[in-house]
Amino acid sequence: MSTLPFYEPVAGDFTAVNQLILDQLHSRVPLVEKIAHYIISAGGKRLRPLVVLLSARACGADSSEQHSLAAIIEFLHTATLLHDDVVDESDLRRGLASANTLWGNKASVLVGDFLFSRSFELMTEDGSLKVLKILSGASAIIAEGEVDQLTAQRKIDTSEQRYLHIIRAKTAALFAAASRIAAVVAECSDEQEQALDEYGRNLGVAFQLVDDALDYDSNAAAMGKDRGDDFREGKMTLPVILAYARGTEEEREFWKAAIGGFRTEDEDLDHAIQLIERHQAVSDTKLRARHFAQRAIDALSIFPDGKARRAMTQAALFAVARGY
Amino acid sequence: MSTLPFYEPVAGDFTAVNQLILDQLHSRVPLVEKIAHYIISAGGKRLRPLVVLLSARACGADSSEQHSLAAIIEFLHTATLLHDDVVDESDLRRGLASANTLWGNKASVLVGDFLFSRSFELMTEDGSLKVLKILSGASAIIAEGEVDQLTAQRKIDTSEQRYLHIIRAKTAALFAAASRIAAVVAECSDEQEQALDEYGRNLGVAFQLVDDALDYDSNAAAMGKDRGDDFREGKMTLPVILAYARGTEEEREFWKAAIGGFRTEDEDLDHAIQLIERHQAVSDTKLRARHFAQRAIDALSIFPDGKARRAMTQAALFAVARGY
Repeated sequence: MSTLPFYEPVAGDFTAVNQLILDQLHSRVPLVEKIAHYIISAGGKRLRPLVVLLSARACGADSSEQHSLAAIIEFLHTATLLHDDVVDESDLRRGLASANTLWGNKASVLVGDFLFSRSFELMTEDGSLKVLKILSGASAIIAEGEVDQLTAQRKIDTSEQRYLHIIRAKTAALFAAASRIAAVVAECSDEQEQALDEYGRNLGVAFQLVDDALDYDSNAAAMGKDRGDDFREGKMTLPVILAYARGTEEEREFWKAAIGGFRTEDEDLDHAIQLIERHQAVSDTKLRARHFAQRAIDALSIFPDGKARRAMTQAALFAVARGY
Repeated sequence: MSTLPFYEPVAGDFTAVNQLILDQLHSRVPLVEKIAHYIISAGGKRLRPLVVLLSARACGADSSEQHSLAAIIEFLHTATLLHDDVVDESDLRRGLASANTLWGNKASVLVGDFLFSRSFELMTEDGSLKVLKILSGASAIIAEGEVDQLTAQRKIDTSEQRYLHIIRAKTAALFAAASRIAAVVAECSDEQEQALDEYGRNLGVAFQLVDDALDYDSNAAAMGKDRGDDFREGKMTLPVILAYARGTEEEREFWKAAIGGFRTEDEDLDHAIQLIERHQAVSDTKLRARHFAQRAIDALSIFPDGKARRAMTQAALFAVARGY
C-alpha cells in the first residue's frame, strides 16, 4: 500500500482490503464499473481504512477480521469524493483528471450513488446493525456539513467557530466513524470506543485544517489539486478567516471582493497568498492542526504502548507535517 | 392523502406516515431542511408507501406496524428524484419548479445524499437486516439503471429489450423492494413474498411505460413536467423505439437527427409526435403497460380476495389508465 512507516503493522491486511474493494466494484453496467474503478484506483492514501485497521489492533483485536469494514469506509469516502468534485466543479483529483471532467457530472452523481448503495449493501453482509447505524448517521452528517459549507461560501463573515463546525461534519465525522466501527466490531470497552472516536475525530479536523492550509501555502509542492480552487470558489477556510480578522481595512476590502467572486484572477490569488503570509495565517492554521493532532494522540493514552498506538501517533503527526 | 379509492384501506395510516416523513426531515442545517421539506411536501401520489402498506395488508398483517417502512421508501424515492432532476436538468417536478432550479445542482446533490443517508439511518432503527439488504441492493440497482439510461441516451439503436432492462432497474426495482420489505416485516410466507415482489416489479414497469408514453401523448393533460423533455434529451423510450422500428427510411433519418440532438425545436417535437401517432407508438406503449399491469394483478392470485388485494388491483389498473 504505502511505504510510510505507520502502515507497517497492518501492511499484510492491505492487499486483502484492496482486493476486496476491487471485487465489490463489479457492476453489470460497464460505465459504472469503469468510473468506479478509475476513482478507486486513483489511489489516495487509504487513510480511513488505515484508521479502521489500526484501531482494531489498538484494542488488541485481529485486524484481519476488519477487512470488509476497511473496504466499506473507503467506498463511502469515494462516493463523497465523486459528489464533492461535482459540487466543487473540480478539474483535478489526486493529480489526475476528476471523474466529472472525464465523464461529466451526471455520471459522477450516479456512480457516487452506486458506491454509496454498494457500501451499505456490504455493511448488511457483515451484519452489525450498530455499524450500520454509525455509518448511516455519519453519512447524513457529512451531507449536512457539505450543504453547510455551500451556505457559507462567499460569506466573508464566517467565523472560525462555524468553520470548525463545518469541517467536523464534512471530514471528521467519517474519521470518527472509521475508528468507532472498528472498536464496535473488535468489541472494545466503551471507554476504548470513546477514545478511538476522539482519536478519529481530532485526526479528521487536523487533516482538513492542513488541507485547507496547503491551498494557500506558497512553499507547498504540487498537491494534485488545482492551486487556488478554494480561493476562486470563495470558500471560507481558516487561512482566509485569520487573514481577514487580522487584516487592515484596505485588506478587508480586498477579501470582501475576492471572496465575493469579484477578484479571482491569478494576480488576485498571488495577492491573497501575500496577505495570508503577512499574517502568518497558513502557519497558524497548521498550528491549529497540531493542536487537534495532539488531542488525537492524547486520546490514545488509555491504550498500552505498542505497535498500533505508536503507528496511530505517527499517522497523526504525519497528517500535520504534510507539505512542510 | 389521496381521494383515490384504492388508498381507502390504509387511509388511516397515511396521516401517521406523512407525519413520520416530516419529523425525519429535521436537520441542524437550515437549507437541508428547507429543500428536503420542499421536495417531500410537493407531494406526488405516495404510491410506493401505498404499495408497502397494502402489501402488508394482503398478507393479513397490521399495516400500522409498517409506517416507518412506508416513510423510508418515500425518503429513498425522494433522494433519487433530487438526483434525477440534476441529471435530467429538469426545470419542473410535479408542476412546481424543481429543487435544482430553485437552489442549484450542488444543493440538490447534497440534500439527495442527506435523504439517502437518513433513510438508511431510519432503517437501522427498525432493525431488520433483511430489509436493509433489500433496500441497499435496490438502491445500487437504481443507480446502475440510471447510468445505463445515460449510456443509452442519443443511441438510436437502443432495443426494446435494453429499454426494459433500464426501466426495470431505475424504476421497478424500488416498487419491487417496497412490496418485498412489507412482506418481510409482515412475516409472509416465501411464496407470498415472491408474489408481492412480482406485483411491485410489474407495477413499476407498467408505471414507467405510461410515464414515457405521456411525454409524447398529444391527448395528455399537463403532466407537471416539461412536455418533450425526453425528446430533447434524446432519451430512447419505447414510443421512440417503436416509431423508429416501424418508420420509413425518411422517418428514420429524422429520428437519427432528433435523438442525436440536431433537431430539437418545437416543430421537431410536433413532427415527432405526428410520427409516433402515425405508428400508434403511444397507444402500443400503453398496451405494453397493460400487459405488465395484468401480470402484476395476476401475481396476486395466491392471496384471498379482500380489500387489500382489490385495492392493489385497482392501483395497477389506475397506473395504466393515467392520462387517458
